[in-house]
Amino acid sequence: MKDKLKIAQMQLTVRADKQDNLRRLSMALDGVMDQRPDLVCLGEMFNCPYDTAMFPVYAEPEGGETWQALSGLARTWGIYLSAGSVPERDGAGHVYNTAYVFDREGRQIAKHRKMHLFDIDVRGGQRFRESDTLTAGDGVTVFDTEFGKMGLCICFDVRFPELARAMVLAGARLILVPGAFNGTTGPAHWELTFRARALDNQCFYAGTSDALNERAAYKSWGHSILVSPWGEVLGQLDRAEGALVSEIDLAQAEDIRRQLPLLSARRSDIYG
Amino acid sequence: MKDKLKIAQMQLTVRADKQDNLRRLSMALDGVMDQRPDLVCLGEMFNCPYDTAMFPVYAEPEGGETWQALSGLARTWGIYLSAGSVPERDGAGHVYNTAYVFDREGRQIAKHRKMHLFDIDVRGGQRFRESDTLTAGDGVTVFDTEFGKMGLCICFDVRFPELARAMVLAGARLILVPGAFNGTTGPAHWELTFRARALDNQCFYAGTSDALNERAAYKSWGHSILVSPWGEVLGQLDRAEGALVSEIDLAQAEDIRRQLPLLSARRSDIYG
Repeated sequence: MKDKLKIAQMQLTVRADKQDNLRRLSMALDGVMDQRPDLVCLGEMFNCPYDTAMFPVYAEPEGGETWQALSGLARTWGIYLSAGSVPERDGAGHVYNTAYVFDREGRQIAKHRKMHLFDIDVRGGQRFRESDTLTAGDGVTVFDTEFGKMGLCICFDVRFPELARAMVLAGARLILVPGAFNGTTGPAHWELTFRARALDNQCFYAGTSDALNERAAYKSWGHSILVSPWGEVLGQLDRAEGALVSEIDLAQAEDIRRQLPLLSARRSDIYG
Repeated sequence: MKDKLKIAQMQLTVRADKQDNLRRLSMALDGVMDQRPDLVCLGEMFNCPYDTAMFPVYAEPEGGETWQALSGLARTWGIYLSAGSVPERDGAGHVYNTAYVFDREGRQIAKHRKMHLFDIDVRGGQRFRESDTLTAGDGVTVFDTEFGKMGLCICFDVRFPELARAMVLAGARLILVPGAFNGTTGPAHWELTFRARALDNQCFYAGTSDALNERAAYKSWGHSILVSPWGEVLGQLDRAEGALVSEIDLAQAEDIRRQLPLLSARRSDIYG
């Protein structure tokens, strides 16, 4: 199992044209490959405007054209690709907010359907109701790589400590979170939540967001972030397009768990 | 049920003389009572040096002289008193880190024994092993007041999201945490942890610490803190002695739970 991982978090602008979003992703990858990342991460709904009415319109089945393009990029560059999330349609016509992960050969090695739908109505702030058009997933997602196990969840999922714990107890050393907070919850809660999840669970957290698109209805907070198992922010972007490229030593997770044994000190005899 | 609560968090210096600690507490209360607090909170092990060798020496049974003094203060002033924590000896000779709460008549209405013992060994930083002389408690503590339900846990207990969740699902709107982080974990994790627990659980958190005593072996971080259900710091001290007096509206907890429905969006069907 390798410990040293180079991760590139690509914070891209999402526009209305699906093909254009894929073309600009491909160009952005061209620009970052001279840094030789092992893992590239994208933001939530990176090929589709973040708009409940658009999700069914842009949705594709697993294996569809977006999926094929992403698999091809992973294979072409020989990278692990946590391909943000995209709207997925299943055989029964349900639409999900789905994150795929591909390995260096372009094989799908993980798939997570957002399991906590984003339904909020903050007075004087953000309103949104994903459940108007989306169906929630029903599984915890942890997968194997040459760097050990990683967890995967999507945006609002990160707010639930139970899910984080489930991923870490299943062995995750790094948790990947394609997301897109907004101008209300972003400044209030984005960094705080990522730092706390990483600290409580003594693992790395990588939150990768879409960039702010001033013309979009939903104003993404951006601020793609990488946090250590000690709860330190290792890197963070602002709201503009950019790439956050970092090298981390995943063995720090186990090292910190020895010094401050939070996971082994859990009282599962009491919590039930 | 009343919503408007005035809370006074007393950050006092702990010295070696138990009686002197109680005398100075009584004087400090004199000084804050003109602000008419409903609830007064104290720090962890406020009557005993924070030293594993001292816990058995200072320990008293429930109902002992410290307990009597605290009950008397609550009755005299007509306040709820979350009396920090003290070393408690049970009939079998076990010693616990125990927090009592008294009502306005001086009756004990809650008792929590620290359930996660503080055993850490941070390289180049803090070492401590409570389990050398203490026994862990085995219960989650939530109690009724005229302000609705409150939760109670002690210092290292605050690091465990499972315990926070258990208290909130049992109805807590405000969680009281006598604590004493240190110069290693304090700057790194104290504020972050309190803010995250309050945000994730959409309740108020009051962490009350002992002040820094430069002559003590254990260097308390102080920084007694009050956080809102939105994760905002409403007030925080530094490391010196002081009182943090605040008026809060506990109904904000329910209000925020309506706007950002984290508790009802939990997927307990999945976490198990």
